[in-house]
Amino acid sequence: MFQTYEPVSDRSFAATHVPLIRAKMASQNLDAFIVPHDDEYQNEYIPAYAERLMWATGFSGSAGAAIIRQNDAVIFTDGRYTLQVRDQVDDSFFSFEDITEVNLGDWIRAHGRADERIGYDPMLHTVAGIERLAKAATAIGAQLIPAKTNPVDEAWTDQPAAPNAPVMVHGPEFAGGADGAKIDGIVRVLMEKKLNATVITAPPSVNWLFNIRGGDVDRTPLALSRALVREDGSSVLFIDPSQISTEAKAHLGSGVEIKSETDFLAVLSDTFLAGKKIGLDPTLTPQEVKSTLENAGAEIVALDDPCSLPRAVKNPTEQAGARSAHVRDGLAVTRFLHWLKRNAHGGKIDEIAAATRLEEFRQENNDLVDLSFDSISGAGPNGAIVHYRVTTLTNRPLKDGELFLIDSGGQYRDGTTDITRTVAIGKPTQEMKERFTHVLKGHIALATVRFPEGTTGHQLDSIARTPLWAAGLDYDHGTGHGVGSFLGVHEGPQRIAKTPNDEKLRPGMILSNEPGFYKTGEYGIRIENLVIVTPPTSIKGGERPMMGFETITLAPIDLNLVVPALLTPAERHWLNEYHARVRQTHVSSLEAPIADWLTEATRSI
Amino acid sequence: MFQTYEPVSDRSFAATHVPLIRAKMASQNLDAFIVPHDDEYQNEYIPAYAERLMWATGFSGSAGAAIIRQNDAVIFTDGRYTLQVRDQVDDSFFSFEDITEVNLGDWIRAHGRADERIGYDPMLHTVAGIERLAKAATAIGAQLIPAKTNPVDEAWTDQPAAPNAPVMVHGPEFAGGADGAKIDGIVRVLMEKKLNATVITAPPSVNWLFNIRGGDVDRTPLALSRALVREDGSSVLFIDPSQISTEAKAHLGSGVEIKSETDFLAVLSDTFLAGKKIGLDPTLTPQEVKSTLENAGAEIVALDDPCSLPRAVKNPTEQAGARSAHVRDGLAVTRFLHWLKRNAHGGKIDEIAAATRLEEFRQENNDLVDLSFDSISGAGPNGAIVHYRVTTLTNRPLKDGELFLIDSGGQYRDGTTDITRTVAIGKPTQEMKERFTHVLKGHIALATVRFPEGTTGHQLDSIARTPLWAAGLDYDHGTGHGVGSFLGVHEGPQRIAKTPNDEKLRPGMILSNEPGFYKTGEYGIRIENLVIVTPPTSIKGGERPMMGFETITLAPIDLNLVVPALLTPAERHWLNEYHARVRQTHVSSLEAPIADWLTEATRSI
Repeated sequence: MFQTYEPVSDRSFAATHVPLIRAKMASQNLDAFIVPHDDEYQNEYIPAYAERLMWATGFSGSAGAAIIRQNDAVIFTDGRYTLQVRDQVDDSFFSFEDITEVNLGDWIRAHGRADERIGYDPMLHTVAGIERLAKAATAIGAQLIPAKTNPVDEAWTDQPAAPNAPVMVHGPEFAGGADGAKIDGIVRVLMEKKLNATVITAPPSVNWLFNIRGGDVDRTPLALSRALVREDGSSVLFIDPSQISTEAKAHLGSGVEIKSETDFLAVLSDTFLAGKKIGLDPTLTPQEVKSTLENAGAEIVALDDPCSLPRAVKNPTEQAGARSAHVRDGLAVTRFLHWLKRNAHGGKIDEIAAATRLEEFRQENNDLVDLSFDSISGAGPNGAIVHYRVTTLTNRPLKDGELFLIDSGGQYRDGTTDITRTVAIGKPTQEMKERFTHVLKGHIALATVRFPEGTTGHQLDSIARTPLWAAGLDYDHGTGHGVGSFLGVHEGPQRIAKTPNDEKLRPGMILSNEPGFYKTGEYGIRIENLVIVTPPTSIKGGERPMMGFETITLAPIDLNLVVPALLTPAERHWLNEYHARVRQTHVSSLEAPIADWLTEATRSI
Repeated sequence: MFQTYEPVSDRSFAATHVPLIRAKMASQNLDAFIVPHDDEYQNEYIPAYAERLMWATGFSGSAGAAIIRQNDAVIFTDGRYTLQVRDQVDDSFFSFEDITEVNLGDWIRAHGRADERIGYDPMLHTVAGIERLAKAATAIGAQLIPAKTNPVDEAWTDQPAAPNAPVMVHGPEFAGGADGAKIDGIVRVLMEKKLNATVITAPPSVNWLFNIRGGDVDRTPLALSRALVREDGSSVLFIDPSQISTEAKAHLGSGVEIKSETDFLAVLSDTFLAGKKIGLDPTLTPQEVKSTLENAGAEIVALDDPCSLPRAVKNPTEQAGARSAHVRDGLAVTRFLHWLKRNAHGGKIDEIAAATRLEEFRQENNDLVDLSFDSISGAGPNGAIVHYRVTTLTNRPLKDGELFLIDSGGQYRDGTTDITRTVAIGKPTQEMKERFTHVLKGHIALATVRFPEGTTGHQLDSIARTPLWAAGLDYDHGTGHGVGSFLGVHEGPQRIAKTPNDEKLRPGMILSNEPGFYKTGEYGIRIENLVIVTPPTSIKGGERPMMGFETITLAPIDLNLVVPALLTPAERHWLNEYHARVRQTHVSSLEAPIADWLTEATRSI
């Protein structure tokens, strides 16, 4: 089992830990200290030792920050966590702010004091982040001070050790592409921008660039590491050398020097960098990296992470791998949906049992390396909590007449999956069916849209919403995120969302297609498949070649929730064709009773 | 007649005028001088005296710029004018650049010389524009110099006089709203931004703010003027006092001081402005205004033109006026379409005759004040030129088997109209019909879309394109622009386009809905109606109120070009309902044969 369901923190954390942190702050003469959620790598999933915000406050959400002062403290979270943060964090220690309304800078402007010494750990904040905070501190005459050591780390005497799982070679059978092509691409960017080198601090970029993976964090197969790439194509990979096997060393080759991560800042302080132009992404790179380089006399040039876009565009090997991974994953989900239909009535199954059973079906296939995220397993009203994560405290049985929403995914060597299905337990209401059908119409509209080169995901977002809008419905999350290739299940730079995003969709990008609808206190609906952006092809009778999406997720959509009369003939055609593909892909791999069920579940309507 | 069709310039202009300009440049010791299209007001339509770019080069398009040096010269235009500029401008004097690929700054960086003295007229360039040019000049060590007098004006001895048409009062019967509410709104913005005053230099904003109109430029009923509004609500209107009648003076009231435009800069130099915070929109305000204020010791604060958004949101009186104007205008267009169907066969009618006849139909109604722009009257291949303007040189007969596209509009005291209809002359091909139907599907999709508060036009643009994209087609212009209330036919800040635009649509905004398709060398198709954004209303069975569009343009869409089988039942329903509205609105105002034709032309399909 990968996933656990025990609560990982409690309300006593603040009372126990804040006084310890304050004592360590005092010894550095700090009036305030900022504790962000993110770690030194700006990871989405962070290792146990980096759960500093949780240790300091008790809050276990995936985003947020706190400011601890000697006499008061505040925690910032977004709308997803409004209830959870008040549950988990002791309000006699912390006040609460919604970070989308009052961000850290706003708070400092409103509550900070002149001459206040506000400390921060310069490895945990990006260049861009510190720029914003420094403006706020300057505005009120306070000082923003990079702390010599992190008071939380000092106070946290039983802080877990940093992970150092062995590096896996992500060979050409998975990574595709020509030898050295990735480094060549970075060198081209350096030439174009007239740079001598670039520092890459985002582990997904480093892992992609060197075709390595690891096991340092849960759910994302990352080897935590950083890199320096020079204009001559030589590079330094900063990683604990004990993580590098002989095989990995051979794979990396002689052009890649391996140095310990503890040498990272020392190498950046090297005098040979004086006068050199070094590119770095200010939204990803720790402030400490910039300060170190500047102290060494280097000239810093802002640069979008040069791995970000090429990583998003999957090559043919990666695309083929994604398709294979989805056949495997779709079979596990299909078996699970059959099991659910057979067993989930009369309240016999709860959210944890369902998520556990799905994990077992995925594990039946030996290729599963990890889940790609902790499953969102939400029954009835819990399904309406968009970022729900079940624990033993919230666990709820699947009841007749309710909907069950399960959003889950797997990490396979050849691809990362992410799928949401919403299932009727017992007999759904007419309202549930109609709203499910509106969501399905949005899903189909996006799955079938054609669009010219140069189109962004932002431009396409409304396509998935139009059928819901027409019914007076909407959903408060994005429609699609990028997905990595045996990497993060959330990956930029492209995105299909209301939020402006100017990244053009390119053939080979993988995205999710996941419109939904949520009725607070009652039920949640989401239908999510992954798609690959297809190259421009000509259309009969047309003049311009058009791109589109190839759906690669293969598991049935619950026909008990579909109102056929609300679908157009074209929409019905898509659903029937999709179900035919699901059936043809899986039916021969299934035992008779399940195969029969699948045939029925994917019937033409 | 408002519109003329004679060519307004010719290829001899450069040879005749450039040497004169160069002599005047030399007397100010300028190596180069920048001649923009735009005038001192950044108007879209400029008065005759301001046609400096045309006088200097021969180019008569509506956007562009030139740089004239002592030994060479270059003219910049956008893709719309690639052919026209080469026709009109003598290439032994000017080289050509596409401004979307090489802008003025790029050109200066590439071709400018160190120490070169590059002159510009500081009343003709905005603050933001000069900021960009100054960066380029600085980069190569050249000097960007505000010229004391404009060498073009000095050389142009028979330059027409500035217009000074009498100011019209735009009374409450047209402008609506409460007395003083507009000034109060500006004062609120000043308070919010902690400003002492703002300078408003865009005539549409000044005209809107004081409820005045004028006749200083063709096609837009503007009184060219500027204003200063102070935090106490008092204001100065800068306009030639001879333009202000006793009635206008009474209308403006005692809170509005009237000063001559020639006093504008002198007032801004007043020492009472020293230390004051003055807001101005850097994208609209002449650089000279900023320099003058700074020299007077004022502190400049960048501000979006505070009239822009409230002007775009029409109040109930303006909305009612727009509806009335469209009934009137739609009747004229309907009569015209009937006339066209009866007469435009066998090549008897040409583009000028058609545009002239349409103008006559509009003038039959005494409420017409002006056209809202020069009609785009394009037969056959000319219809594929998106910004086509017919002259006696390009005039072409409407031929059987071709399409005829006419985009036109009127200025009425109660509203501004803009409508495009595409008509089959004789029998259209199946391809023309199919493509017209795809455009119609896009038009209907946008006309019927519902959307939540906070949605931008940019988000909705793809809704109109999806049916075309699905057929391998697209169009290279925006889908919708804002329209003024007896003001400019193109008005911001909202816009429905591929280009990002973060302005939210608000109830009362008027926009065009005008998807199209263009087959170069063969035909053009566009279907354009104006719409008013409707307030959020609840939808049966839904949870969130949704906004939408009310179509206000009322003239038949050519059913000879519609392939009913390509329309969904919902699309057919929209078309039939729309045509029923058109018929019911106009039929009782028409004589029997035209009424009969309209009944047939608006039949249910």
